[in-house]
Amino acid sequence: MDATNNSEDIYETPYAEIDSFFDSAPPLRDGTNISSKLKDFIEMHSSSSVSGSGGVNRVVCVTSGGTTVPLERRCVRYIDNFSSGYRGAASTEYFLKAGYSVIFLYRRGTCQPFCRSLPDDPLLECFEFTDESNIQVHQSHFEAVKRALTGHDAAVAGGFLLKLPFTTIFEYLQILQLIAISMRSLGPSAMFYLAAAASDFYVPWKSMTEHKIQSRSGPLDMRLVQVPKMLSLLRKEWSPMAFCVSFKLETDKEILLEKADMALRKYKMHAVVANELLTRKEEVVVVTSTGNITVHRDKTQPDADVECPLIHLLVERHSAYIKDSDF
Amino acid sequence: MDATNNSEDIYETPYAEIDSFFDSAPPLRDGTNISSKLKDFIEMHSSSSVSGSGGVNRVVCVTSGGTTVPLERRCVRYIDNFSSGYRGAASTEYFLKAGYSVIFLYRRGTCQPFCRSLPDDPLLECFEFTDESNIQVHQSHFEAVKRALTGHDAAVAGGFLLKLPFTTIFEYLQILQLIAISMRSLGPSAMFYLAAAASDFYVPWKSMTEHKIQSRSGPLDMRLVQVPKMLSLLRKEWSPMAFCVSFKLETDKEILLEKADMALRKYKMHAVVANELLTRKEEVVVVTSTGNITVHRDKTQPDADVECPLIHLLVERHSAYIKDSDF
Repeated sequence: MDATNNSEDIYETPYAEIDSFFDSAPPLRDGTNISSKLKDFIEMHSSSSVSGSGGVNRVVCVTSGGTTVPLERRCVRYIDNFSSGYRGAASTEYFLKAGYSVIFLYRRGTCQPFCRSLPDDPLLECFEFTDESNIQVHQSHFEAVKRALTGHDAAVAGGFLLKLPFTTIFEYLQILQLIAISMRSLGPSAMFYLAAAASDFYVPWKSMTEHKIQSRSGPLDMRLVQVPKMLSLLRKEWSPMAFCVSFKLETDKEILLEKADMALRKYKMHAVVANELLTRKEEVVVVTSTGNITVHRDKTQPDADVECPLIHLLVERHSAYIKDSDF
Repeated sequence: MDATNNSEDIYETPYAEIDSFFDSAPPLRDGTNISSKLKDFIEMHSSSSVSGSGGVNRVVCVTSGGTTVPLERRCVRYIDNFSSGYRGAASTEYFLKAGYSVIFLYRRGTCQPFCRSLPDDPLLECFEFTDESNIQVHQSHFEAVKRALTGHDAAVAGGFLLKLPFTTIFEYLQILQLIAISMRSLGPSAMFYLAAAASDFYVPWKSMTEHKIQSRSGPLDMRLVQVPKMLSLLRKEWSPMAFCVSFKLETDKEILLEKADMALRKYKMHAVVANELLTRKEEVVVVTSTGNITVHRDKTQPDADVECPLIHLLVERHSAYIKDSDF
């Protein structure tokens, strides 16, 4: 409450706010089932059984898509953050290619790994019935459909990809906490790649109206409170040895790098990926304590994306981090 | 501005508010293309060429899904209304079955006609690659996939179904206006079935912040203004002869029928479908000037839905309305 307290450590986690957020959240549905899936997945990758390398496999938790903030308990209206989930889905593919196993924590309905080249409504746009029992893929979409089905099935069936969906900011942070605590045992082999567009503001469940907000009584005034930053807690308590990459999206280029740098220091991230809304598919800046690296997509290749060199760079950094942690 | 003016006609359209809403909206992208599609579709159904009945074909505009309200011009955050689009998609199927042609104005990404029985992610869940060039549908989903592809293709290819997508409240109302003005020539053979969950509140484009709202400066206070009700304008000017059905969704049963009845009188609807959030798939009440009719789904059939008897009733009412208009 004392804003003039200059002795406050900027790394301090506001525990009271975090407790209040989790207390205010509706209970996570299906929590036991999620925990059990996570336990199995992490156990499999804690041994050498999959890679055969004799060590612990690298596991990355990729978060993807926007979170919603309900404005009413029996939810009709909510605030949402724009995110197609393209970056998270593409990055998941490159992490899998680099030998990582991936926990993909994604917003329901957003882009899925291996499905980026498909049209919006793949069933209606890619297929046709040729006769009573035969379905054909239109030639123009054949390669995209084949890639989606074979790539996705191989990753899931092989045990390299665990997909966990969320919708609200409450679900997102509750599941992220479960994941982070499960991944603690992986030590520095764990990575967090927090590409989801998490809401900054929410309406505490307890102060939320039960019924639909009525529209007849003039303008609507709303007060939203800040979602406490969980990054400090992730770094300090949930998974303190993991390599952590967060994202900063701004529409205003002027303040982007400054804010990314602030997040790096404040939350002790290992890297912050700074991206501007309009150019985010062309380039991003990876902000680290040893300097900033701008990563571009390869413009000579029409299908090349910025996630390919970005994941390449982060995997290198993660390797160096694991090596350093050995000593 | 004078709230004490009791002489105000409750049917009065607040033109100034409506002008201010449309002036405040960003220009509709692809407007010329939409107008040209509408012109062709209506022309086809204004003649007897399709039905061969010698008269004007019946055309219904079904609106479906929720609208978004951007909170920033370069939009990262927005307010959304919950709606899967199931009701609009199901109703479209029954209208087609009853011989109507349908303009389906739907929120991008929501449920499509003939696709209700599919899982969330039909491509990844229904199909598999059997070898290099063969895709198979899993047996358990075969009938659902077949129904989706054949039903949807027949309606679109036959010229009975025109699909127009929207995302924001601005797009929704701009396209609805284009549709309504196009449908005017159909006279009483036109129907509006306004099942979309349109936002009640918006941030006027002109007062909207250019950049992403910053989160560091404490709680966020927002003032949203009411979206003007366009129903009066639809009835009075855009398509005055059309049969109009609007929807009222509430979570509080106590006020539902009262509000539906108020909408019926205020906007001169021909019917208002009143539904409560928790029971909306089991029953709805059709509120009309001659009384209320409760419509239930047929509980003896596991796959039966409430839209089947609802559309049956509305088609009957529309027939009576067309007959009355002849005299």
